[in-house]
Amino acid sequence: MEVVKNKAEILRRLKGGLIVSCQSEPPEPLAKPHILVAMAKAALMGGAVGIRANLPQNIRAMLKALDVPVIGIYKKVYQNSEVFITPTLRELKALLCTGVPIIAMDATDRQRPYGQNLEDLVAYARANSSALLMADISAVEEGLRASELGFDLIGTTLAGYTEYTKKSFKPEEPDFKLIAELSQSLKGRTPVIAEGRIWFPEQAIKSLKLGAFAVVVGTAITRPWAITQRFVKALKKSLV
Amino acid sequence: MEVVKNKAEILRRLKGGLIVSCQSEPPEPLAKPHILVAMAKAALMGGAVGIRANLPQNIRAMLKALDVPVIGIYKKVYQNSEVFITPTLRELKALLCTGVPIIAMDATDRQRPYGQNLEDLVAYARANSSALLMADISAVEEGLRASELGFDLIGTTLAGYTEYTKKSFKPEEPDFKLIAELSQSLKGRTPVIAEGRIWFPEQAIKSLKLGAFAVVVGTAITRPWAITQRFVKALKKSLV
Repeated sequence: MEVVKNKAEILRRLKGGLIVSCQSEPPEPLAKPHILVAMAKAALMGGAVGIRANLPQNIRAMLKALDVPVIGIYKKVYQNSEVFITPTLRELKALLCTGVPIIAMDATDRQRPYGQNLEDLVAYARANSSALLMADISAVEEGLRASELGFDLIGTTLAGYTEYTKKSFKPEEPDFKLIAELSQSLKGRTPVIAEGRIWFPEQAIKSLKLGAFAVVVGTAITRPWAITQRFVKALKKSLV
Repeated sequence: MEVVKNKAEILRRLKGGLIVSCQSEPPEPLAKPHILVAMAKAALMGGAVGIRANLPQNIRAMLKALDVPVIGIYKKVYQNSEVFITPTLRELKALLCTGVPIIAMDATDRQRPYGQNLEDLVAYARANSSALLMADISAVEEGLRASELGFDLIGTTLAGYTEYTKKSFKPEEPDFKLIAELSQSLKGRTPVIAEGRIWFPEQAIKSLKLGAFAVVVGTAITRPWAITQRFVKALKKSLV
């Protein structure tokens, strides 16, 4: 299907909507491109306006089968860095090759592998594609910096997962403070997407009310093992 | 894998646990046996103790791949009856052929297709297999009757879905009253399984505390389109 490429059109389609993250890695049994595509189709049946997906093979399958904006990431763990969401030029290039209309990458202050830096990745993407760029950040200052660097979208994806934001981590609750502050600061400049630990519709609504442009929900919708585990842990705890 | 057949062993494995219902029908994109098996495996990774599945082809695939107790149903809509969970002898026979260790069927007071009746279905199953039988009911009296008929398990699956229990229907909330009353009445006789509209771990815990033997959760874990829809509806409503 035709890939949605135009920035205004992409933003129009995502605005106020639910983007469903469809990720699964081995040994998870759903970690196959065609199953993740089926999962994404199910999400679209339910009214999702976009999909977030990991790894080129999955993204390619999604782009072939879906006609909504897809946000592509490439998770890869390097030994010498904590950055793992599209960490280096290598993963960025692989994503660019898929033709995915939106590419998300870690935009925290942490050291990237091999001393690579965010500015160079952005410059490379801009010079070689018309893909929109989404900055996955953990703190307000990172979001402001990403906006200055020209990112098209900023996601609160990593809030609570960097060493310096650990204290704001609440299980099953997004970082509303970050969502609110960043949306306020970047109003009229860069859309902020609420992502991370959104488990309930009420949290998605609150995120939009606090100024988020759109909302990403993943685990609560597309990770049956994690949802099951949430129930099982609660049941076991209640039996103690 | 070896099918768990012994009643005491099956009950021991299910007791106090989470059974995940993995169902999907066309046009849902996940409605394929191998995808439903992957879904079930994901649920088992998360700690589920059993699986509930619909249709012989899916059940066969589950039995081949999983080594937990499987509850099999065969949904089929007949024009002359509201009963659709293993409604007639035809569906029952098809389930018996799969060798599934537990067979669930509608055990409400409603008319079955072709004037067939519950007693005959139970008698046929008993004469032709050692499968455990689970009664899907909607009201206390139906549960008591099913227990008298010798059902091994009773599920609150249809509470709120029969004409005469519509008034007890609450969206996103199981019929706790039914779970409590039936568990109390059948204590020491027939285990009651809480099923239907369990969306949150707290509801599963409450069900066990009210006396349920185990809990079945389906949609909230294995229907990404329905979970997505729940979020999308809430978002849309909040924007009005």
